Amino acid sequence: MFSPDVEPGTPVPDGGPWSAAVGQGGGVLRSVEIGKLPLEAGGGLPDVTMAYECWGTLNPEGSNGVLIQHALTGSTHVSRGDSEEDGWWEGLVGPGEVIDTNRYFVVAANMLGGCYGTTGPSSIAADGAPYGSRFPFVTIRDSVQAEARLADKLGITSWHAVIGGSMGGARALEWAVTFPERVQRCAVVAACAASTAEQIAFAQAQVLAIRQDPNFAGGDYYDGAAPTLGLGLARRIAHITYRSEAEMGARFGRSVQPGEDPLGHARLRPVPGGSVAGRYQVESYLDHQARKLVTRFDANSYVAITEALMSHDVTRGRGSLVESLARAADVEFLVAAVNSDRLYFPAQSEELAAALPGHVVVHRIDSGIGHDGFLTEVDTVGELLRESFFTE
Amino acid sequence: MFSPDVEPGTPVPDGGPWSAAVGQGGGVLRSVEIGKLPLEAGGGLPDVTMAYECWGTLNPEGSNGVLIQHALTGSTHVSRGDSEEDGWWEGLVGPGEVIDTNRYFVVAANMLGGCYGTTGPSSIAADGAPYGSRFPFVTIRDSVQAEARLADKLGITSWHAVIGGSMGGARALEWAVTFPERVQRCAVVAACAASTAEQIAFAQAQVLAIRQDPNFAGGDYYDGAAPTLGLGLARRIAHITYRSEAEMGARFGRSVQPGEDPLGHARLRPVPGGSVAGRYQVESYLDHQARKLVTRFDANSYVAITEALMSHDVTRGRGSLVESLARAADVEFLVAAVNSDRLYFPAQSEELAAALPGHVVVHRIDSGIGHDGFLTEVDTVGELLRESFFTE
Repeated sequence: MFSPDVEPGTPVPDGGPWSAAVGQGGGVLRSVEIGKLPLEAGGGLPDVTMAYECWGTLNPEGSNGVLIQHALTGSTHVSRGDSEEDGWWEGLVGPGEVIDTNRYFVVAANMLGGCYGTTGPSSIAADGAPYGSRFPFVTIRDSVQAEARLADKLGITSWHAVIGGSMGGARALEWAVTFPERVQRCAVVAACAASTAEQIAFAQAQVLAIRQDPNFAGGDYYDGAAPTLGLGLARRIAHITYRSEAEMGARFGRSVQPGEDPLGHARLRPVPGGSVAGRYQVESYLDHQARKLVTRFDANSYVAITEALMSHDVTRGRGSLVESLARAADVEFLVAAVNSDRLYFPAQSEELAAALPGHVVVHRIDSGIGHDGFLTEVDTVGELLRESFFTE
Repeated sequence: MFSPDVEPGTPVPDGGPWSAAVGQGGGVLRSVEIGKLPLEAGGGLPDVTMAYECWGTLNPEGSNGVLIQHALTGSTHVSRGDSEEDGWWEGLVGPGEVIDTNRYFVVAANMLGGCYGTTGPSSIAADGAPYGSRFPFVTIRDSVQAEARLADKLGITSWHAVIGGSMGGARALEWAVTFPERVQRCAVVAACAASTAEQIAFAQAQVLAIRQDPNFAGGDYYDGAAPTLGLGLARRIAHITYRSEAEMGARFGRSVQPGEDPLGHARLRPVPGGSVAGRYQVESYLDHQARKLVTRFDANSYVAITEALMSHDVTRGRGSLVESLARAADVEFLVAAVNSDRLYFPAQSEELAAALPGHVVVHRIDSGIGHDGFLTEVDTVGELLRESFFTE
């Protein structure tokens, strides 16, 4: 039944050093052109490409699709599939798994503004140059509109389920409220109804870290050095919020990085790569997280998607929270929170659940790790999904 | 009894735009030369000036002194005194106040490495140029050694009490353990026995924000533009950790800064000063905090003191925590924590109290504001001090 508009493995029009990662998955990254897209904040994008991966086969009714939405720096690569590389929710999707690809057609789309194949700031505009600073402001809702066009192209009439964690949860929630007739079930994991003041504050620091890197050049850096120091600092700030104080304490404490001395004049000598000599282990760990991200992610996409997440507010233009969510009265919801999450506090999931139509309880994901528990506790997430959405 | 080594109001040898603030307090900033100071991490400083303010009169025995230790970006200006400007613990010190200057001689010293008069990176070295990148690595213990020299100069044989919050609490604790015979009472407020992995992680992000500002120039920026963008970003990161999620949520929520539109292309235009157009109120608030700090604080001092705080560990070279604190068996302790503090968690105060000699309970400072509660809840801090240390 499924017939992609382009051949599997077609290279996506993308540039920059993170492109190497676009092909990951053994050529199973696919893309479709969805045409001109008007944007919530005004203006529009003339030619939008949506990149995605998929597993399984769509049924003739177009009703067995499952949309899995990635987080801020996530990609379409949810599951290894035929590729060589594990996905970010490995084990959840596949033949005989919780989301059984013998029964369901699973789709993961790269968010609008991203750098994993979907049109974003690093994409080539009509004039042959990357968008860069010209890339317009996009919101969570804009991406959901683009994803709906992708669903049209794929022949999906109504998703069996739309599932997401963190920013993916925001996108999943927006799907249920924007297109309730096309969403049978919706799982919102470690996410909330609207980005809070603190989430906005931490996001501002990250965006500023990138903008203040002189290599950023206002967003037009594609013909020069990338703002890796700024992006690396943004990642460090973010990563602290993804982990709990207790986890960092138990894992690193005050341990010193072997061979280095934090109590020394050597500290004052910057080391190429933005770090300094003489580190505690936790510093080395964060340096490592920063280094990993800058090799696979575009700084402009980081800014665009972070600002889209700052804009997340399911109530915008829809009245109160209860009124806004009432539109999704026929959608079955699963809400889950990581008990140690200090970026998306469980109380925020409780607030969402309480305002949803019908009786929705908040399932707890037990993990001491913090927000990232929604990624590391795949088995728990799988069990919750099996019990709620994939019982048969 | 008290006879300062220099005349009150003598200008301190300092440079940079933050010097304007040095004179604050109506000329009551004083300073003494304490000579050459060897440093814990090796090397030393040849000529150290310690700046301080004081209130009241020292008794002939030199035993009625109270040392109040400032936090990371704090100054010697604890109390208005004869000046025009309120102090950071205004109302706590003065005639008839909790710390009654008719009975006690109160001293507040600027930390070693600071920019409020004590020798720091912006001070002029022997060759006539500011230290800049040549300023050595200093620790909390180095500052306590320097403060002990100041106490010698002032004729203080034994402090009635050494009191501090946040980094000031770390300095107070080090005083009690390093010089137990010179500390009768010690108050450690919103502080802990050793900086934790998470505290180090947030500190690293702040230090990197400054180091990565091209104006920082490795620390030798005194003949050019100051790294205000980097320092401002460091302050934003820090300030988020000083406040609770609940306080930011209740105060700002998702409110938009009047006249600005966060959902707009205008966001992509950087505004002079490091911010961007189209902000949420919480962003404007953090921009304001950043702007305030960069006009009064030196970036090199921020790095030096932050790294000193990262080094804070009362157990270094002293055995276990219990063994380390046993040295202060004759010191009377007051430990207090802000219940909503998420930078210095109350559990860290509990851990300290449990390891102190004798039976020490942790007093709670009730505030929803977070770590900054140790500054805003002056009355509560005052009551705790009155009950414990200033009963007569």
